[in-house]
Amino acid sequence: MADKVQLQEAIKTQGEVVRKLKSEKASKEQIDEEVARLLQLKAQLGGDEGKHVFVLKTAKGTRDYNPKQMAIREKVFNIIISCFKRHGAETIDTPVFELKETLTGKYGEDSKLIYDLKDQGGELLSLRYDLTVPFARYLAMNKITNIKRYHIAKVYRRDNPAMTRGRYREFYQCDFDIAGQYDAMIPDAECLKIVYEILNELDLGDFRIKVNDRRILDGLFAVCGVPDEKFRTICSTVDKLDKMAWEDVKKEMVNEKGLSADVADRIGEYVSMQGGQDLAERLLQDPRLSQSKQACAGLTDMKLLFSYLELFQVTDKVVFDLSLARGLDYYTGVIYEAILSQTIQAPVSMPAEQNGADEAGVSVGSVAGGGRYDGLVGMFDPKGRKVPCVGVSIGIERIFSIMEQKAEASSEKVCTTETQVLVASAQKNLLEERLRLTNELWNAGIKAEVLYKKNPKLLSQLQHCEETGIPLVAILGEQELKDGVVKLRNVARREEVDVPRVDLVDEIKKRTLLS
Amino acid sequence: MADKVQLQEAIKTQGEVVRKLKSEKASKEQIDEEVARLLQLKAQLGGDEGKHVFVLKTAKGTRDYNPKQMAIREKVFNIIISCFKRHGAETIDTPVFELKETLTGKYGEDSKLIYDLKDQGGELLSLRYDLTVPFARYLAMNKITNIKRYHIAKVYRRDNPAMTRGRYREFYQCDFDIAGQYDAMIPDAECLKIVYEILNELDLGDFRIKVNDRRILDGLFAVCGVPDEKFRTICSTVDKLDKMAWEDVKKEMVNEKGLSADVADRIGEYVSMQGGQDLAERLLQDPRLSQSKQACAGLTDMKLLFSYLELFQVTDKVVFDLSLARGLDYYTGVIYEAILSQTIQAPVSMPAEQNGADEAGVSVGSVAGGGRYDGLVGMFDPKGRKVPCVGVSIGIERIFSIMEQKAEASSEKVCTTETQVLVASAQKNLLEERLRLTNELWNAGIKAEVLYKKNPKLLSQLQHCEETGIPLVAILGEQELKDGVVKLRNVARREEVDVPRVDLVDEIKKRTLLS
Repeated sequence: MADKVQLQEAIKTQGEVVRKLKSEKASKEQIDEEVARLLQLKAQLGGDEGKHVFVLKTAKGTRDYNPKQMAIREKVFNIIISCFKRHGAETIDTPVFELKETLTGKYGEDSKLIYDLKDQGGELLSLRYDLTVPFARYLAMNKITNIKRYHIAKVYRRDNPAMTRGRYREFYQCDFDIAGQYDAMIPDAECLKIVYEILNELDLGDFRIKVNDRRILDGLFAVCGVPDEKFRTICSTVDKLDKMAWEDVKKEMVNEKGLSADVADRIGEYVSMQGGQDLAERLLQDPRLSQSKQACAGLTDMKLLFSYLELFQVTDKVVFDLSLARGLDYYTGVIYEAILSQTIQAPVSMPAEQNGADEAGVSVGSVAGGGRYDGLVGMFDPKGRKVPCVGVSIGIERIFSIMEQKAEASSEKVCTTETQVLVASAQKNLLEERLRLTNELWNAGIKAEVLYKKNPKLLSQLQHCEETGIPLVAILGEQELKDGVVKLRNVARREEVDVPRVDLVDEIKKRTLLS
Repeated sequence: MADKVQLQEAIKTQGEVVRKLKSEKASKEQIDEEVARLLQLKAQLGGDEGKHVFVLKTAKGTRDYNPKQMAIREKVFNIIISCFKRHGAETIDTPVFELKETLTGKYGEDSKLIYDLKDQGGELLSLRYDLTVPFARYLAMNKITNIKRYHIAKVYRRDNPAMTRGRYREFYQCDFDIAGQYDAMIPDAECLKIVYEILNELDLGDFRIKVNDRRILDGLFAVCGVPDEKFRTICSTVDKLDKMAWEDVKKEMVNEKGLSADVADRIGEYVSMQGGQDLAERLLQDPRLSQSKQACAGLTDMKLLFSYLELFQVTDKVVFDLSLARGLDYYTGVIYEAILSQTIQAPVSMPAEQNGADEAGVSVGSVAGGGRYDGLVGMFDPKGRKVPCVGVSIGIERIFSIMEQKAEASSEKVCTTETQVLVASAQKNLLEERLRLTNELWNAGIKAEVLYKKNPKLLSQLQHCEETGIPLVAILGEQELKDGVVKLRNVARREEVDVPRVDLVDEIKKRTLLS
């Protein structure tokens, strides 16, 4: 397809890119990527140059999950999904790609990070960038006005991956959202309760959940004298307060964003405030802030929210924090973010935007975030009909990383199978007997394995159990067959006992229930 | 980016395509797709022409899964995953896209159905076409020589979708594979046992599993006089025997594939044979077939396979069928395919290649298939080191369709949530009391919901339970609060009983265990 001369030109240029990177001692990862492209171009050319050149790797910024990682992933998912189900959520799924237009105009500057599919005729498609926009498209398309759903799936961002810090181009999102016209703050409070429950159950250490409201921020900016068109950009500067000193944030406001020092100082006064219901009450009396209708609406809702959080017994971890701003444009009301208190030395496992890290990628331990977005569904509805939504996204990749590190640090082995028993023999020529017994166990619902060898050594059968964490071995021999028994061995304790064959299933069930 | 004049030209051409399709009364789906492309081109142009034109749809050949479909999907997955785990399998995951080269040269003609990603700089990528090639890449890349793993994930094929017949461009595959150098036919037999268990447990009606061996087919072709270079193409003609009469298959062999009528008739004799272990024994004595070393190796293994299947008690459903050929090139030994006996009127839910349907898409009820592929991993290894593999793919999309239809046909409601109880009130001003009780239930692990209204009517609360299948309602009123009780209502039976609040959790657990 591609013109041969053009291709040869491209190969030459790409060769120079690789040489340059090597001479500059660029990172191995960067060199690998450019070498991969060079080899791909050569392969396109075909002929001798393209033969047998092949890089055995996954695409840049992606990774395989091995069985150990999958076992941890499953454990984390089970805890999270149980919580979602406890709160009565349904689940949906959407395709991995959407019409290009569906994603257009939803992510601001980040749109450049969207993966497009090649135009192979037909529609122009892009890989999903998050789960929220497909959810809004789903609601509008099916005219759904009420739903409580969760969605766990992979999303794609052509971000500059920092794989050493665990930042990937393909990563999981884990979203819970409530759509519908309801009385104020009740679904919002449930979202926070869910974050609280999940972080407690995952046992990641102490945490707190910061809460704010876009209307309070906007009102605050207005009464402090920020011009309307600068609300969003000042918002993102405020968002850096969790990792930058106020002095530096102020500098950015004044020098880069063009606010006067006075205005910045007035903002600074407010955004240093933290508290609970009492703070919301105090600010409702604030002579300046109470001038803003928006701020008052936000503060009144904040009071109400805290009264519900009190009933849900989660106020010990929730802080009303006026410095919380959140990156995304589509939030219209309450916003929140959960942060681990102790900074565990974990690689950052999510894109900066999502974990509240700044452009430099400094992690601040954010593991969940979300808020209210009442306008997004309306962007898809032909008549602009709105469906109010509030939701939360669990920062699952970061949680995986922390759980993986905990597993590494602990002496406990991660089991990648659930096998209860290995059917083994100490003597030769008992393959058929082993298969027969294994079949009996499978039919009784026991998780059983057998080595695929005619005459495996007993030692290698026991080693297989040690390596994979199988707790029991059912050993057959001539004598056992004659006596109608099976020798049941506890691998950890190295104890053996003869069990009548008719009792074997019950005995295995009993023993593996306890272990 | 695109040149404006070119774009205008493209819009004009695309407009004509749409007009032509409409005048030809093409299918709605086909017109929709071309209209979508037209609007996309206009949107690229920007300006007034591109404004507010937006098609609210999923990409061609894809679909959302709604909560009801997800509930069925979860049920099917649970049965299948339990079986895989009972057989000691681990699980892995791989990225949704691979380097383009990883997929190149693995699918023969079907390569044109691969989705490519747009070249946005960096590596050239493609969406995975199946799970087998990424699995082989994973083994080679990580130098793994032994693993028993399952992988359930979506794959992508730019096939001509027939959505009315349930054929999609994004669909699930559900694979179980055993890699490693083992004694003959033991892992192969386990794969068949797994198919048997899964189809039994899914309760899809009677089925049978056809088994054959590529070596037997090749040997058979050789002794019948088929030239070597025609083995593969004759193989795919033989594969049509399950939906075409022998006469038509013979015609294709003679007229299209250029075999002599004699050779075709000799093939016809063999491929009409069906049986069990006895047939393998008989064919080993066959004067012609026993000339072929390959066929003898295959037949000897077939005998051995049946002896293991006997031990696994599955021979009642397994047939040695010499007409089974399977489409994919990479099989090297045993091949198999499971077929439902009663043709349930279900739409075909998988690509033709996978469900054994012919090009015209006639379904033959195939719900699982697989075989041995000993050469694939070696294609990825720099030194060509082989890792023998055998595996099975469950035709999960077809199974979803059948289960969905069964659910539609039965009077039983598909529950999309697992909620055990709705916390309700009959009187006004009890929101706080409802939230407090709901919180108690959540904390005790009960799946509970509460309506997000200050003062919902009792009737609308009960209706919510009827609609969503919540079995119990915990009703609070002034009197109940005073008496320290909750009125627990059984929604189906419309019976109410006062339960002391301290006993409520246990009572709910007891009642929802039985329901």
